Amino acid sequence: MTLAYDGTRYAGWQVQPRRPTVQGNVQDALGTLSGGTPVPVRGAGRTDAGVHALGQVADAEVRTRMDDAALLHALRAVLPFDVRPLAVETVDDGFDARRHARGKSYEYLVDRSPAGSPFLERYALHLARDLDVDAMRDALARLPGRRDWSGFTAAACEIEDRVRSLTEATWEERGDGTARFRFRADGFLTYMVRNLVGTVLAVGTGRFAPGRVDEILARGDRTLAGPTAPPRGLFLRRVDYHDVDGGAPPASPLGP
Amino acid sequence: MTLAYDGTRYAGWQVQPRRPTVQGNVQDALGTLSGGTPVPVRGAGRTDAGVHALGQVADAEVRTRMDDAALLHALRAVLPFDVRPLAVETVDDGFDARRHARGKSYEYLVDRSPAGSPFLERYALHLARDLDVDAMRDALARLPGRRDWSGFTAAACEIEDRVRSLTEATWEERGDGTARFRFRADGFLTYMVRNLVGTVLAVGTGRFAPGRVDEILARGDRTLAGPTAPPRGLFLRRVDYHDVDGGAPPASPLGP
Repeated sequence: MTLAYDGTRYAGWQVQPRRPTVQGNVQDALGTLSGGTPVPVRGAGRTDAGVHALGQVADAEVRTRMDDAALLHALRAVLPFDVRPLAVETVDDGFDARRHARGKSYEYLVDRSPAGSPFLERYALHLARDLDVDAMRDALARLPGRRDWSGFTAAACEIEDRVRSLTEATWEERGDGTARFRFRADGFLTYMVRNLVGTVLAVGTGRFAPGRVDEILARGDRTLAGPTAPPRGLFLRRVDYHDVDGGAPPASPLGP
Repeated sequence: MTLAYDGTRYAGWQVQPRRPTVQGNVQDALGTLSGGTPVPVRGAGRTDAGVHALGQVADAEVRTRMDDAALLHALRAVLPFDVRPLAVETVDDGFDARRHARGKSYEYLVDRSPAGSPFLERYALHLARDLDVDAMRDALARLPGRRDWSGFTAAACEIEDRVRSLTEATWEERGDGTARFRFRADGFLTYMVRNLVGTVLAVGTGRFAPGRVDEILARGDRTLAGPTAPPRGLFLRRVDYHDVDGGAPPASPLGP
């Protein structure tokens, strides 16, 4: 299934005891529709607390007589409005939303308006000050490639293989007073996008030179990077598979 | 001053005892900045509970040594993030944001996506079912003109002169899964936009024929009109004056 969600009131995707999570809500909803007990659900990406999704993908083994369309409608009725199922598709046994994902893309929304938009309070970082966009684009252009991303992950990240292939790292300014980062890779480490955003914005404000990112990559030292950007601006945009389409994202504060 | 606000957590623009209001917050903020006691503020339009604004205009007599730009920055710091001052301008004595307004425009946002966007839960009416857009446009085209709008106002509306000139009534579908109504007039009555929206949507779903609006206008009978659309989709877009510009609206769920 493909899901969009507003992560504001959730402690993230992953189930935790006594805290509201997106995964927990989906597991309960599927349980309600198929006999009572929660159904285990596996998500492609573990979004952090407060992070949103335009196209998260998750799989589950559901015992039901409903076809895909009926299950989709039932899920829409059972889930809270801040978790919206966009598509349901029957897949082969053995499909694994996490392991079979070929790539993911994330967006990070920045509100550049002087006063800040009251409608983007939960969906963007408000940063009105001048930014050196040429320097930011210089820094972003140094990122794509197959690299060890230790310098941009959380100290607590338990993943040992920190090599990932980043294929897109861009900054786009829009006519409506917002701007967005977009990153695409075959996988991301804990806090990686938020650390990249914090570091590139520090280049934009003149705190770092663009070459700083080369140094962080070469030395793998998180303490050289900028602050972790807050979760509210981050959206898991889509997950790509060889033969399953992540579906079109919904109307969102990111625009079409 | 020109203000944008997210009306979700407010009991509307107008001050009420022991309830959060936009006017109350602005009066307190100006008071904080000019000596302690709240400063009376007069708004161009009294938006209802849950209704938003992209460009509300309000006036106040403020005793301060700050110039317009300094006052604007101070207001941004003092007001909560869901009430954003966009512009501050010194005006002539006697300027009245309400009486001197030549016209206002409102928008009403409808989320047409099948699942509904989780990011528009507070800013749009979700209506996924098919609509007869030709019939809706037929109904809308019957509205502009100088008319008595009794049939589209609340029964409790205490305004006696219910004649207003409506100059725009449109429905625009957008590529991002949303659509919007836009209305422009020299003034609006209580619930007028929400009753127009509810009635035209009832034409879209086939409950009413387009000619129904002629009947409502001719007979001035509110009971013939459709349901009052919920407040969350409604935005006071701008207020026009002869020589004061309402300012550009901020980044919003309505897009540019």
